[in-house]
Amino acid sequence: MRKGELTRRAILDQAVSVAARVGLSGLTIGTLARATEMSKSGLYAHFNSLERLQLDTLQHARDGFVDMVLRPTLRAPRGERRVRALFEHWCTAGLSRQVSCAVLVRAAVEFDDRAGPVRDAVAHEHRDVADSCAQIVRTAISEGEFHAEVDPDQFARELYGILLGLFHAARLMDDPRAEERAGRAFEALVLAARVQSAHSPTCPPHFT
Amino acid sequence: MRKGELTRRAILDQAVSVAARVGLSGLTIGTLARATEMSKSGLYAHFNSLERLQLDTLQHARDGFVDMVLRPTLRAPRGERRVRALFEHWCTAGLSRQVSCAVLVRAAVEFDDRAGPVRDAVAHEHRDVADSCAQIVRTAISEGEFHAEVDPDQFARELYGILLGLFHAARLMDDPRAEERAGRAFEALVLAARVQSAHSPTCPPHFT
Repeated sequence: MRKGELTRRAILDQAVSVAARVGLSGLTIGTLARATEMSKSGLYAHFNSLERLQLDTLQHARDGFVDMVLRPTLRAPRGERRVRALFEHWCTAGLSRQVSCAVLVRAAVEFDDRAGPVRDAVAHEHRDVADSCAQIVRTAISEGEFHAEVDPDQFARELYGILLGLFHAARLMDDPRAEERAGRAFEALVLAARVQSAHSPTCPPHFT
Repeated sequence: MRKGELTRRAILDQAVSVAARVGLSGLTIGTLARATEMSKSGLYAHFNSLERLQLDTLQHARDGFVDMVLRPTLRAPRGERRVRALFEHWCTAGLSRQVSCAVLVRAAVEFDDRAGPVRDAVAHEHRDVADSCAQIVRTAISEGEFHAEVDPDQFARELYGILLGLFHAARLMDDPRAEERAGRAFEALVLAARVQSAHSPTCPPHFT
């Protein structure tokens, strides 16, 4: 790798850390200059504009998320085990305050009422992640572990809702039972989708 | 109401609108001065400090949320109908981009990795909302419509996850099916809690 590319990556690592703290919209050439102890003009040489910096930082966060969550998930066998791996890796990334994960979740809220290229890129990345989740759910259907009638997009949506609720409870509210509660919601979701549970006499437990 | 109090409320209405756009942490005396066309010194006379402004804005947003979501919900009869009213009023507030609702949801993400009085206040408000939701679920249990074994806090947590997923899908991703999907997740949650569904032969549908 060329030295210029190495420097660029090191800057983007810092940019993702800064954005995890102040938001992607709070990331400026100035805040990044302070974090990297580089000159603003040096940073402009790499990114040209604030928008380019924000877009590249978002992409770098997406790469980090893929490395930390999606790639290890795809190592699990197709089917329910892969769906579980997705949930577990994502929980771990979120609860350990992994910066890439934080930037993606945060950017979604920051940019949901804005227009422009950064918002479009944030929506694009989130659509990609949702598609990857749905694809993982599809492997459980094609392996015959989940019902053929399960809607993979619906499952992916509900899974993401459980994760957002978990991050909220654990990170803001310091709820010591956050992970246990998210686990119960996840089990109910899986149980309702699983083939052998379809004819069981009782329904999945949202119970104590 | 005294004139000073009226002015203060009008300023806080503006402050909530600004915070819905730039976040509670992006709200400064300067941004508010521009929005209200008041002088910074005039605003300092009302709030003394940025922290006070942020705390009062948060409280004003909470009051707006209570007026828009909780108060009309409590007009519905106790039981499942009240749980449904909560979900519906909250969906409406979120999807119509009601500013108070946006400030609360956004502040939770903004402050989840910070320390200090504003973060503590954000966590406090969210704990209060979660408690109110659990209390509404309890009315469905005491009316005999939901199982006695339903865990109201778990139900409230899952409900909030569904709403967060909905706001994400509708606001960032412009998904035209966002509300329908959230509705399906909500129906599955209610069905699993409902007394008459406990002995039904199949489980709630995450199905197409």
